[in-house]
Amino acid sequence: MAAFIPTPASIPPPNALLRLQDIPNAPPNWHPLSPLSFILRAAQIYPEKVALVHTDVQQPVMYTFSVWAQRIQNLAYALIKAGIRPGDRVGVIAPNSPMIADAHHGVLAARAVITPINTRLKPSEVEYILGHSQCRLLLVDYEYLHLVAGTKIPVIVTNDTGRAGDPYEDFLAEGRCFSQEKGWPGLEAEPDENAAAVLCYTSGTTEGCPNHAQRLVSGGSGERLRGAVSLREFIDARLGANLRSKNEPPDRILPMFHAAGWTFPWTNVFAFAKQVTLRTVNYTHIWNHFLHSGVTHYCAAPTVQIGIVNDPQARRPPQHITAIIAGAAPTAHLIAELEKTGIKPVHVYGLTETYGPFTRNYDDPSWENLLLEERARLMARQGHAFATAEAARVVYPIEGDAVSNGPLKDVPRDGKTVGEIVTRGNIVMKEYFRDPEATQKAFAGGSFHTGDLAVIHPNGSVAIMDRSKDIIISGGENASSLAIEQELASHPHVLEVSVVARNHIRWGERPMAFVVLHPQHAAKWKGRHHEFGKDMKEHAKKRLPGFACPEWVEVVPELPKTSTGKILKTELRKIVAKL
Amino acid sequence: MAAFIPTPASIPPPNALLRLQDIPNAPPNWHPLSPLSFILRAAQIYPEKVALVHTDVQQPVMYTFSVWAQRIQNLAYALIKAGIRPGDRVGVIAPNSPMIADAHHGVLAARAVITPINTRLKPSEVEYILGHSQCRLLLVDYEYLHLVAGTKIPVIVTNDTGRAGDPYEDFLAEGRCFSQEKGWPGLEAEPDENAAAVLCYTSGTTEGCPNHAQRLVSGGSGERLRGAVSLREFIDARLGANLRSKNEPPDRILPMFHAAGWTFPWTNVFAFAKQVTLRTVNYTHIWNHFLHSGVTHYCAAPTVQIGIVNDPQARRPPQHITAIIAGAAPTAHLIAELEKTGIKPVHVYGLTETYGPFTRNYDDPSWENLLLEERARLMARQGHAFATAEAARVVYPIEGDAVSNGPLKDVPRDGKTVGEIVTRGNIVMKEYFRDPEATQKAFAGGSFHTGDLAVIHPNGSVAIMDRSKDIIISGGENASSLAIEQELASHPHVLEVSVVARNHIRWGERPMAFVVLHPQHAAKWKGRHHEFGKDMKEHAKKRLPGFACPEWVEVVPELPKTSTGKILKTELRKIVAKL
Repeated sequence: MAAFIPTPASIPPPNALLRLQDIPNAPPNWHPLSPLSFILRAAQIYPEKVALVHTDVQQPVMYTFSVWAQRIQNLAYALIKAGIRPGDRVGVIAPNSPMIADAHHGVLAARAVITPINTRLKPSEVEYILGHSQCRLLLVDYEYLHLVAGTKIPVIVTNDTGRAGDPYEDFLAEGRCFSQEKGWPGLEAEPDENAAAVLCYTSGTTEGCPNHAQRLVSGGSGERLRGAVSLREFIDARLGANLRSKNEPPDRILPMFHAAGWTFPWTNVFAFAKQVTLRTVNYTHIWNHFLHSGVTHYCAAPTVQIGIVNDPQARRPPQHITAIIAGAAPTAHLIAELEKTGIKPVHVYGLTETYGPFTRNYDDPSWENLLLEERARLMARQGHAFATAEAARVVYPIEGDAVSNGPLKDVPRDGKTVGEIVTRGNIVMKEYFRDPEATQKAFAGGSFHTGDLAVIHPNGSVAIMDRSKDIIISGGENASSLAIEQELASHPHVLEVSVVARNHIRWGERPMAFVVLHPQHAAKWKGRHHEFGKDMKEHAKKRLPGFACPEWVEVVPELPKTSTGKILKTELRKIVAKL
Repeated sequence: MAAFIPTPASIPPPNALLRLQDIPNAPPNWHPLSPLSFILRAAQIYPEKVALVHTDVQQPVMYTFSVWAQRIQNLAYALIKAGIRPGDRVGVIAPNSPMIADAHHGVLAARAVITPINTRLKPSEVEYILGHSQCRLLLVDYEYLHLVAGTKIPVIVTNDTGRAGDPYEDFLAEGRCFSQEKGWPGLEAEPDENAAAVLCYTSGTTEGCPNHAQRLVSGGSGERLRGAVSLREFIDARLGANLRSKNEPPDRILPMFHAAGWTFPWTNVFAFAKQVTLRTVNYTHIWNHFLHSGVTHYCAAPTVQIGIVNDPQARRPPQHITAIIAGAAPTAHLIAELEKTGIKPVHVYGLTETYGPFTRNYDDPSWENLLLEERARLMARQGHAFATAEAARVVYPIEGDAVSNGPLKDVPRDGKTVGEIVTRGNIVMKEYFRDPEATQKAFAGGSFHTGDLAVIHPNGSVAIMDRSKDIIISGGENASSLAIEQELASHPHVLEVSVVARNHIRWGERPMAFVVLHPQHAAKWKGRHHEFGKDMKEHAKKRLPGFACPEWVEVVPELPKTSTGKILKTELRKIVAKL
């Protein structure tokens, strides 16, 4: 690493002014909220502090805030030189690496809209997004060039070297040259804090819509993002409230292409934190950083968390670490494993349409006295909305026309009545891009409809029962597959479990469980999966009403997952349909 | 304390909905920023957590977030019942105590404007403020009733008991009754995030304006406050970044009537923190809370900090404490004393017009290797602007007409050229209330003019040299009284020192130092003040250029101070004028 020297274009001039052009005629008591302000502050206040660590590659790089800000500035000028105008979409296809980190700031500095694209998509899916988003330019990592083969959109490739001769580095150097050393004051500040900043495509697929199966159908345009992020920023900093120092580096396992990295690409900078970028989820690298880089925060879905705690290198790191968990609730087993390793789990919940998490399970000091199982049950709740959103409500389904603007009616806060989670406010997307119909439907009644079925507890904490399609109607009773999964996961030999409905001649539907055994216990059940199934059913009977007990238990080597690590129940349903 | 039970009106109904009325036709991706949202969240997420501690009185009280939120709601309804309409000013005269804490939230919940009034003013000054602000109602603590004797404005008195029979408690009970149990949803949310929220009067006096001497001449109306506070909130939470837990109680020594308590009455609630209210600066109480209540934060001017570290009870508390210091830079001596006691000093700078601090001295890890004197010199800088303001700039005085809107010109960032600190953005007041001329002057060139003369260092950190009137012109050289004070304060026998200009037949002006000796060393110099003066001059000669050395050193028992603890140089100048 000592040998790495940033390219000449990345070296800022001495005494550089870290301020954008003044906004003409802005009132003196107002400035537009913008996440871009964070990198300018960080480069001003802590110029020599390490900002970006990308060392798990053949040609490692490491940038200070000062150098990174210059690279971001170069990118903005390079985009403007390439013809990018305010509001234009700039696509980015890259794993976590400096280029995509740069782009979250540099594209905004050019007043353009960053469009991160999932690297795990098929070329046809990428093609769809490029057409839908009307991207004007693409920043593509060398490993994903095949995804855009044949595109007519200009492509800037990075070889992820940070060295001169890398096409992306040449692009930045052109930007620096084009700037004529006007620096930040040569760039216009975006005067409208509601201007679009991010266009995300969700990772879900659309069931019952075969033309779009395996296609990304919705894009959230973050018109309010500039404001929302500024606030969100601080909230996310709060997630580390129990840490010794905010300035220690958080790790990033969550890919930045996913819901703009839940806005962490900006929030980390606000917190003056060092970001570690990992191209892949590699447990050796993760543990190396946990044990030797002083990492204090990371985000990951439960499946990745399971991989982390079960890695052979897992041991208690010298510093406190906070694991931000979303995608599914952490099970009692996972919570115990994380805490045993010295990692504090924080459960959050959200969607791409809310830039990732918008609720958090705020833990209560009184929980410390509870048994693990009971505490896990409380921690599995999705909790309360962040300060950046208005309250997360649970409402009755809108009667009649879903698009009517009839007022939403809250279900009673009894922890029992199931309704849909809705929210509204600064953290919510502006619209589904170029889809007014879907937008109108999503905002029926003036709030954003998550599609997640939940109850609300007397203290206002929401708890997801299921996505509406995940409810199992067993003998006329509504069984929550999520609730069943939680109970089955408490079986000590289970690593992961997923439950779906399977048709039943007598009960209509009955739960079927797909189980991945814990590696430490798999040998015990080898060739005896049927016995394991019996054992599991016994386990379930003690914990669940009869209609919610799995009728079938299938041991599988792994569960099908989306590119962002969520379990693909659609695939499990396909298997079930063939039985 | 166990015996204290809140009044029946303060007890919230079970399962209360902690949400204001919906704003009609608000876009789903927008909600107005409002500090009021914090108490609603806190009461929802941590209803049973202690929010307010007021125990150093004959009738101690302690409220949870749930109970406190109900009291705030009661206050809002009571104000509405009393005829308060959106935008009306509600005056508050009280020391730090539950009523003024309530009012910071409850007045806003009635969509009115809180007008905190300094308890240390004279009745004639209060009368001026009441007339100027056109307050419609007054909330007054029993100890300050004499300040409003004869007013025609309705007065609600509190005896600060929290018990039934207290007129303020009766007022709250009336509010509860008037609410007809409609609760929070019966109150309108303020739809305009730029609506006025706070009207503060500054504590300064106006020199050269005899009619107004000892009078408060400017009021800052916080139209953007709702937005600014929401952001500021998080920043202030960051001040405690090095603490183990955000949820530990911060102490409040800073009076809430001063610049709305620097917005801490809201920020503490955002952080779910317990607030300790002290009616007076009582070092016994302060140390009691430091040692036994787990206090983690407090705000105070250097003079109060000196009192804290020199108190006989001072010892290392079990938890980390952060001292937020404003009003003047901490001296090397004070920094050393605080750190010795286990208190981390954080130096901030601001004015009433910016709701208190808008810059912070961001410390750098590299400073740890410096000698104390050098570190103190760096920590004395005012630093960089918070994220809630745009950059703090240092500009050349506007030439010609001060009110012209000519563009402001930055002085070079050389740490030498003296200019005026200006800033702009969401943390800045909207206007001097009912004084368009002063407003126009303060905002000349589109930024707020602080009146503080400073240099700007290459890293963008600002460092005040002096208020323009505090510069001493000695032999044609500009000597900064602040810089002189800093050097004199490093004398080990000095508790406090203040330097002003005194006319000199040869040099025009020469510095005169007023010194309060440290109690531990006062005996040594008893009857030998002349010798101490010589010793001090020797000390100065080693550290300062000749023109900046004090020509006169006067040992005094104490220094004259404003009601908020700032040293009154005006009074010292009056003494000097008579010599």
